[in-house]
Amino acid sequence: MKKEDRHQKAIQEIQAIRSKNLQANELANDLIGGSLSTLAQCITLTESSVPSDRKKAQEILQLVQPRAGKSIRIGISGVPGAGKSTFIEAFGVWLCEQGHKVAVLAVDPSSETGKGSILGDKTRMHELAARPDAFIRPSPSSGNLGGVARKTRESIYLCEASGFDVILIETVGVGQNETTVHGMVDVFVLISVAGTGDELQGIKRGITELADIVLVNKADGSNLPMAKAARQDMVRAFHLMPEKESGWTPQAQLCSALEKTGLSEAWEQIARYQEHTVSNGFFEKHRLDQLNNWLHDYLRDELWDRFLHHQEVQKQFETISKQVVSLKLPVATAAEQLLNIYNKD
Amino acid sequence: MKKEDRHQKAIQEIQAIRSKNLQANELANDLIGGSLSTLAQCITLTESSVPSDRKKAQEILQLVQPRAGKSIRIGISGVPGAGKSTFIEAFGVWLCEQGHKVAVLAVDPSSETGKGSILGDKTRMHELAARPDAFIRPSPSSGNLGGVARKTRESIYLCEASGFDVILIETVGVGQNETTVHGMVDVFVLISVAGTGDELQGIKRGITELADIVLVNKADGSNLPMAKAARQDMVRAFHLMPEKESGWTPQAQLCSALEKTGLSEAWEQIARYQEHTVSNGFFEKHRLDQLNNWLHDYLRDELWDRFLHHQEVQKQFETISKQVVSLKLPVATAAEQLLNIYNKD
Repeated sequence: MKKEDRHQKAIQEIQAIRSKNLQANELANDLIGGSLSTLAQCITLTESSVPSDRKKAQEILQLVQPRAGKSIRIGISGVPGAGKSTFIEAFGVWLCEQGHKVAVLAVDPSSETGKGSILGDKTRMHELAARPDAFIRPSPSSGNLGGVARKTRESIYLCEASGFDVILIETVGVGQNETTVHGMVDVFVLISVAGTGDELQGIKRGITELADIVLVNKADGSNLPMAKAARQDMVRAFHLMPEKESGWTPQAQLCSALEKTGLSEAWEQIARYQEHTVSNGFFEKHRLDQLNNWLHDYLRDELWDRFLHHQEVQKQFETISKQVVSLKLPVATAAEQLLNIYNKD
Repeated sequence: MKKEDRHQKAIQEIQAIRSKNLQANELANDLIGGSLSTLAQCITLTESSVPSDRKKAQEILQLVQPRAGKSIRIGISGVPGAGKSTFIEAFGVWLCEQGHKVAVLAVDPSSETGKGSILGDKTRMHELAARPDAFIRPSPSSGNLGGVARKTRESIYLCEASGFDVILIETVGVGQNETTVHGMVDVFVLISVAGTGDELQGIKRGITELADIVLVNKADGSNLPMAKAARQDMVRAFHLMPEKESGWTPQAQLCSALEKTGLSEAWEQIARYQEHTVSNGFFEKHRLDQLNNWLHDYLRDELWDRFLHHQEVQKQFETISKQVVSLKLPVATAAEQLLNIYNKD
């Protein structure tokens, strides 16, 4: 679906809610009942910038929250070309066949600017998108990683309340996005490919430090020996890395999204990770930490937003920042003045 | 100097100021007069967490600011082992010999935790440290990059007002630090070495994207052919990169900090960069943008700080965040409640 079409669809969804004048509790009930169209509508509400929509979204979140939290949240990342989408399609279909309900959410702040690839697009995942037990949602469009992160976190809760027990959160392999996604998932899976020379560089460079499980994709045909070697290199590197807070030693496995091999092994590994971290208490602790961080991030963003929209601050901001850029006022003094205006009332 | 000694020295400096009861205007005059001990004392004041010290520091900054801004601010980064310190020592001494006054500031948020290498240590730069026309200041100790950045920005102004016309800002080669230092300098120099296999990886990975000038260090002895090849690779890569906002095509050059070669060529390149960006207006625009960003960062940090220290917020924070982690309250609703407490008075 093109961006304009998605935008159009979001408007239609919100209009549907408004025209039916559905209350938060009705929407929450439909959502819990498993209605995918209601789920889509509720996510659209959380993504809306209209205050009344956001308010309704919060009411729904509060109502459904007791039913949320009962999924495994899996972050999936990898450099472009590693085959993330193909893997998610194959893995998602396989999971559905095992009786799971699978939601795919994407985090890609660049999608609005048109520079990056738009992720989570249903057109890339025909087979998965066609299943009634799967739900695919593209990245909320917003230039700002903080905004995208907030909306995605809320979407996770809505999907869980709607009965999805596996949440796949896809992101592109560019540093900051990964850290953000890492902050909202239980387990982080990196899709890698052999032969790009990136494997060990990646490990050195830190992105792989986030990974709990690395899947060396495209382990098929003539690629297989190279993939095996890459996996060996990773296993060795993992053993040299400092121990993670989770107490888990990262694992590297082979898979082929194309030939649909290594999927059950990947799931087994994720299950092993969950077992390990649930039993040592890290799983629960990690989720609590994430909630606390989310609250902090939210407060920081919202404080800044309120400050910028404060009437008197808005009046004075330009004058004072002009004095700063003309070097008449040191930054700290200028900040002090603006903060005193804000805190006066 | 060890960390404890530095801490001791800072206390002595502040006590000296207090015991002499020197007013901001006296300190500002001494600073402008070129007293290095006063410069050190003033920097210590900006780094102090005592409100009256910070207040005096701001008064000094306001008094000396008209004399600041007349230097070239050069960011210097590179992976550990690239020879940053050796280069800065050699380059700094060479610049002093040409009649410049050189200040070296370090940005290394990790220095407090003891994990990273403590930068800007005078013991590593004997020759430069001994010169009366050089000033070396280690990284302000603080676990927080924002705090370190603020203090370093203020130190730049103090050094400039004190007559230093070349400010070298050293940082370790780890992503986030570089971006921060990039936000406070006019030109960004990357020290690189051949043969680590990092050259092109670095270019792919984005750190090198910040660089205006790359110096391939250790271009001496048997290393020379490899350094030349690495330089060629970089030049090619730079031509494939999208044009920078500055309109400047990054340059790669050879140097040997050990044999003190390539130093005048490095300076020439920096001068060419300055000429280029001054004439197309980018230099000025960039500095104004930096001041605006600085003001924004400062305001955001300070807002958060005031919020956290608000009496009523402090009282309620724990109760409300407990409701969040027990999933009784959605994050946005909890944030709303806390913000309303804060904004009530």
